[in-house]
Amino acid sequence: MKRPTHGGNLAWAAALAGCSPSLILDFSASINPLGPPKSALKAIESHLKDLIAYPDPNYSQLRASLSLLHPTLTPDWILPGNGSAELLTWAGRELSELEETYLLTPAFSDYKRALRAFEAKVKEYPLLDRESGVWKMVSKKEDREENSPLSSLFPTPHSPSDCGLLLNNPHNPTGQLFERETVLPYLEQFALVVVDEAFMDFLPPDQQQSLIPVVQDYPNLVILRSLTKFYSLPGLRLGYCVAHPDRLRRYTQWRDPWSVNVLAAAAAIAVVQDTEFQQKTWDWLPRARSHLFEGLASLPGLQPYPSAANFLLVQSEQPTPQIQEKLLKHSQILIRDCLSFPELGDRYFRVAVRTEADNQRLLEGLKSIL
Amino acid sequence: MKRPTHGGNLAWAAALAGCSPSLILDFSASINPLGPPKSALKAIESHLKDLIAYPDPNYSQLRASLSLLHPTLTPDWILPGNGSAELLTWAGRELSELEETYLLTPAFSDYKRALRAFEAKVKEYPLLDRESGVWKMVSKKEDREENSPLSSLFPTPHSPSDCGLLLNNPHNPTGQLFERETVLPYLEQFALVVVDEAFMDFLPPDQQQSLIPVVQDYPNLVILRSLTKFYSLPGLRLGYCVAHPDRLRRYTQWRDPWSVNVLAAAAAIAVVQDTEFQQKTWDWLPRARSHLFEGLASLPGLQPYPSAANFLLVQSEQPTPQIQEKLLKHSQILIRDCLSFPELGDRYFRVAVRTEADNQRLLEGLKSIL
Repeated sequence: MKRPTHGGNLAWAAALAGCSPSLILDFSASINPLGPPKSALKAIESHLKDLIAYPDPNYSQLRASLSLLHPTLTPDWILPGNGSAELLTWAGRELSELEETYLLTPAFSDYKRALRAFEAKVKEYPLLDRESGVWKMVSKKEDREENSPLSSLFPTPHSPSDCGLLLNNPHNPTGQLFERETVLPYLEQFALVVVDEAFMDFLPPDQQQSLIPVVQDYPNLVILRSLTKFYSLPGLRLGYCVAHPDRLRRYTQWRDPWSVNVLAAAAAIAVVQDTEFQQKTWDWLPRARSHLFEGLASLPGLQPYPSAANFLLVQSEQPTPQIQEKLLKHSQILIRDCLSFPELGDRYFRVAVRTEADNQRLLEGLKSIL
Repeated sequence: MKRPTHGGNLAWAAALAGCSPSLILDFSASINPLGPPKSALKAIESHLKDLIAYPDPNYSQLRASLSLLHPTLTPDWILPGNGSAELLTWAGRELSELEETYLLTPAFSDYKRALRAFEAKVKEYPLLDRESGVWKMVSKKEDREENSPLSSLFPTPHSPSDCGLLLNNPHNPTGQLFERETVLPYLEQFALVVVDEAFMDFLPPDQQQSLIPVVQDYPNLVILRSLTKFYSLPGLRLGYCVAHPDRLRRYTQWRDPWSVNVLAAAAAIAVVQDTEFQQKTWDWLPRARSHLFEGLASLPGLQPYPSAANFLLVQSEQPTPQIQEKLLKHSQILIRDCLSFPELGDRYFRVAVRTEADNQRLLEGLKSIL
């Protein structure tokens, strides 16, 4: 079986581990281990009877529910999608109409898919200097210093009105959080700024650096959000886009009218009101991440990077594919090699933060093979 | 509340009827009234636990299952989609690269969305002469005469290698079935032929006129199929595209990697093997449709058209919006006005074929207001 290019291919992992896919402990996909919330499953079950009807093409109720998460927004600033990846497709189409798109690398592999789909011209700005091994803007210390300005990464575009910027905040795979203020200047300089905030909701509200509160000041801003990582429903597909209503109407005219299935819509309406699950996640993550960080840092040849998200990037002295294979065979644990982030080479891997017990199993598994 | 542009907007209908949406008897959406099959619901329920993982981006098992429906095909000729509407988007993109696309009208409104999305140049060929009220190729008699060639509708393109053709077979809203042989010549003449066979599976296998059996001879042929009409799961979103593997790989590079949710995939794998449900549908439809046809034909001022699909187009002496409103208010029955088919004006409506009891309720409702 071919090594998968995405994370989370359990069939491949199970074949290598010699067990059933359900027995694999999956650290490769960055999904909240506390979910899915019961409220989601209950909503899905009680809406099975609605499968016989098409979804409401306006998604009025769903948009109204999503606006509860963002009290400054009216529903017309929100467009739900079949996962944020669907909405990325249309953002990619808009970026392709510009002269070029600035992209920080390493970047989530699907960005390149969406940009290539419409033949966007991409200018890559590496966060990691491969020769020196030195990161820009990514601290190795847990006590992060003051954020350096993003401008240290790339110059002001030569013809700003014709260029786009595609950012990920918090950044995947480093977990780096860019403060809102460091991003704001780019909204003045670029014709279109697309910010993927797929992991932003893992931060407690008072620590989030989302651009949603300022979106009404910037018609050139597109924010992508996911609901399936925080609420552990990636198989259901649900994301949303926050942007000027004119832009969302354009996306709506491009895509098919019923892109979000009725069960995803029902689950979303339920989970956005599930404050108990939200609080439980915000209580769990900082502590579990910190323990996992310390555990990884204490293992020989591993160096984890501080992260604001629910995953940790880890630098390794040993080649990652070897570690990955050994972990699968010895412990039925799947970690994410970073081969889909070609800029990183083979000495990095990424692990999700899971429950304390699962994280302990990972640390013990690693200890036994390093 | 605004009159919906699509069919099936139960919220609008319920407001007009003064009842809850669940009490509306919906003849506006052409969904199999016998479903969803228990096999589908069982598969969905037993796969709720899989929502915590991303779908397999290759959809290997789903493609293999779909190929059971089409024994001449290997799985790489089949691409599942988030409803056939998602796949129509990408077919529309390809058509837009051609000089112009020939389109029979009236046409399903989403065709125009997909063609406009990529600024395709469209040349419309009307099946109905509005002035004379005479249809081309659509017989008013139930004993249909020999099909006239499609060529009576439009000329051979002047630069065939640069033109596309978008067809619907059986045709919506007329229910007209084009015989395979009448379509084949166009595969030699057009650069790209897209055939939407969303309702083809309602015909028993020996009567189907699908182009799937010849797809391997025509790299310029794209066939769209739906699973959600026959299996009554439009809220779940599942369709597929049959075309040359190179073309499907191109679509795959354009769209996001996880467009089909895991519950839709699980339901599809179950229903394609549910031969009992299939047979039940093929047994029900011809008889129920024939009774409904006769009942409608016997009412004053109504003329139904013979149909190969699970719906009937009906010409009416009274304006359709009036009939629609009266039926909602008096009988809580929703029929499909044809305002989204602007070529038809306001003297046509479309009704789904439902169970014999439901059809009887429709006939009685109509009788009381005509």
